[in-house]
Amino acid sequence: MDIRRLKGSLPLRLCLLLSAFACSAHASTPAQFPSAQASDPAELGWMVGSPPPPERILRFDDGSYFRFPQMRWSVSNFRQLMPTVNVSHGLSAPSPLKRNLLDAIDTVSFMPLGADKPMTWQQSLLANYTDGIVVLHRGAVVYERYFGVLKAQGQHGAMSVTKTFMGTLAALLVAEGTLEPERKVAYYVPELAASAFGNATVRQLMDMTTGIRFSEDYADPNAEVWAHAAAGNPLPKPADYQGPRTYYEFLQTVQPQGKHGEAFHYRTANTDALGWVLARASGRNVAKLLSERIWSKLGAEQDAYMSVDSIGTPFAGGGLNSGLRDLARFGEMVRNNGRYNDQQILPAEVVTDIRNGASREDFAKAGYSLLPGWSYRNMWWVTHNANGAFMARGVHGQALYIDPAAEMVIARFASHPIAANSANDPTSLPAYAAVAKYLMEQPKP
Amino acid sequence: MDIRRLKGSLPLRLCLLLSAFACSAHASTPAQFPSAQASDPAELGWMVGSPPPPERILRFDDGSYFRFPQMRWSVSNFRQLMPTVNVSHGLSAPSPLKRNLLDAIDTVSFMPLGADKPMTWQQSLLANYTDGIVVLHRGAVVYERYFGVLKAQGQHGAMSVTKTFMGTLAALLVAEGTLEPERKVAYYVPELAASAFGNATVRQLMDMTTGIRFSEDYADPNAEVWAHAAAGNPLPKPADYQGPRTYYEFLQTVQPQGKHGEAFHYRTANTDALGWVLARASGRNVAKLLSERIWSKLGAEQDAYMSVDSIGTPFAGGGLNSGLRDLARFGEMVRNNGRYNDQQILPAEVVTDIRNGASREDFAKAGYSLLPGWSYRNMWWVTHNANGAFMARGVHGQALYIDPAAEMVIARFASHPIAANSANDPTSLPAYAAVAKYLMEQPKP
Repeated sequence: MDIRRLKGSLPLRLCLLLSAFACSAHASTPAQFPSAQASDPAELGWMVGSPPPPERILRFDDGSYFRFPQMRWSVSNFRQLMPTVNVSHGLSAPSPLKRNLLDAIDTVSFMPLGADKPMTWQQSLLANYTDGIVVLHRGAVVYERYFGVLKAQGQHGAMSVTKTFMGTLAALLVAEGTLEPERKVAYYVPELAASAFGNATVRQLMDMTTGIRFSEDYADPNAEVWAHAAAGNPLPKPADYQGPRTYYEFLQTVQPQGKHGEAFHYRTANTDALGWVLARASGRNVAKLLSERIWSKLGAEQDAYMSVDSIGTPFAGGGLNSGLRDLARFGEMVRNNGRYNDQQILPAEVVTDIRNGASREDFAKAGYSLLPGWSYRNMWWVTHNANGAFMARGVHGQALYIDPAAEMVIARFASHPIAANSANDPTSLPAYAAVAKYLMEQPKP
Repeated sequence: MDIRRLKGSLPLRLCLLLSAFACSAHASTPAQFPSAQASDPAELGWMVGSPPPPERILRFDDGSYFRFPQMRWSVSNFRQLMPTVNVSHGLSAPSPLKRNLLDAIDTVSFMPLGADKPMTWQQSLLANYTDGIVVLHRGAVVYERYFGVLKAQGQHGAMSVTKTFMGTLAALLVAEGTLEPERKVAYYVPELAASAFGNATVRQLMDMTTGIRFSEDYADPNAEVWAHAAAGNPLPKPADYQGPRTYYEFLQTVQPQGKHGEAFHYRTANTDALGWVLARASGRNVAKLLSERIWSKLGAEQDAYMSVDSIGTPFAGGGLNSGLRDLARFGEMVRNNGRYNDQQILPAEVVTDIRNGASREDFAKAGYSLLPGWSYRNMWWVTHNANGAFMARGVHGQALYIDPAAEMVIARFASHPIAANSANDPTSLPAYAAVAKYLMEQPKP
């Protein structure tokens, strides 16, 4: 891929291509995009045929795979576009998920943020380009829907929900004493000593309170996000390419900006640096670590997988792809304070620490107007609402929402045309709350 | 990948890289190669470390991944090197495999072909660079070993064993009436009308008796195998590349040589053409067809996967990767005349047709001196020995060996330094026969 050539193109969409899905582009109305129905990837028939018609072929190297609406196919098929590494679920049978379907959830009504008329749950799924959604209540599937090309059998990009897995693994190693959160990053990764990460603590990585320069301003050809993406791109580099060639090489170039530990700054590079720390602390890459410590213990029904750079480094900041029900199993494990599938997979204290959250003042400095009073801990987004809900979030609408009071877990994959979750939060966050309320009103069995 | 640059390098190894593992290079002694122990990929630590040391990094684009001994790692990790498409096993629990281990198999002795002193089974596994081997007797695992980086949990390249799956799927569609074997290839794929395949029958593809020009002489820069490999390579083509850009485009360029139906000629391009026919006859690509009709019915414990070209076409001639036990499950299903996991997965007549084989006279014309009296039917190699054994074979020692009389199935993955199976047949074919004899002598339970 010729980065310079791509830079000339549409910045919003290219941010998705080049930063590998960790954008924080500003929200705007999706009015310029086709609707969920009009952009249905199954209807449009991407990559269908032998061969597909030329105008239905998507490629990684020319960026066509991540234009809209093409990306609605690609998010369920990243593996066909790039090299990946497996996150094995092991060889045993999946843990059973009880089913107690409540189709009436379709009619649950809520008021979208900033709107003046209500919307039903069912309408919301189209409004925010949902590809698949599962609701668990007390561990049983009460609602499950798939759209477009996603099926129960298949994996979807989790985008920055990947970060939450990394933060959880880090918290697990901390609880075990394998990782010391107050150590400097350079203690674990000496190669980062001269970078902005070197004198940050592991805890600051985990809570994203480092002071680093990592611009995701796609209109700026010198923004660090371009170098990050080019470094992590697994394709052969252009002959005249002079930049960092891997995620690890890129991380060593990151410069300081501001002070560590003063405010929440959501920067994908923090998670990639945390991934490096995890690899050094555990002696295995994060895909293997995730398989060994979490995925193989959940009774997952499918392997997950991660994208890799040209030397096999899994993309810790956003490279995970998984089945939707398996993401829900992970959420259910966390909701149960780490216990699931007859095992204590995470120490309960890890979940307590996540639920307690971090500094709401630090979080407020980041200016997320739709997320008032929230905080960010161990790469989880903590609502601090009355129900104590907390969640994992990835661009284009990926979400894992855990509501302890409602005994509810929602896993959602989506392909919203706008990366930033501020574009889909108005039709999803209040919808989750409304379903939580509905479930809390159900008679106890 | 710059094909011209690669052409200048070692032809034997590059055949593996470029033809994507479908070579039929002449056998030679492996004396110039390090032993199985000295080339153990786990000991050598390929791709281990964060980052791995530079001399332990393997890449697809520069061909380093398929040099020896590096390829001993790559055959268990193709997915990390290239885009792939899943062959889903579905979401249900794996079918149980009983275990009745007979470790005494290690001491079974046999005379290697052309040798003057015997070898034990255990010795043979090192002699032919076995990565993993499973022996089933009456459906129970009686022997299972893994070496190097292959584990029960993980997938290995099946190389041309892939062809056997394609031939079996074709035979299944024939039995159902979806595919008419006496039809001309051009009936199903009009785009092939002007190629050598156009006036061949589907049956001639299935039994590889077409007369096509497809040289695998790697010393010849004009050999068709180079064009086939370049066409199927998923990486972006060099700017000045003028050749076919996909498997399908390549197949349209294949020229006639000799007459159809007169002799067995083992040519990978036949299977790629059959893959195209299967896609047209079934309305889905061969990865999906394989999942739907076979893999998801076996109770496989892992998904399989296939490599793809730049437009997502699975490499029918050699792109399958699977777990070893799942390959054994497939063999056990065939041994049981198509019935397995409480389902009739293949009609019994399909297995009967395979076991009956094809013309031994046609086969003899191909000059396989180590395979006297064999034939090739539906992309299976039929021994016509006293036990009625038949097998699937892939370069570097991949094998699925079914011995009906001994009620035995052997699945083996290997990474022999020499592609052609004539290099490992001397220490494997008589070993299989010796274990069959041993098992037939065991008391009935």
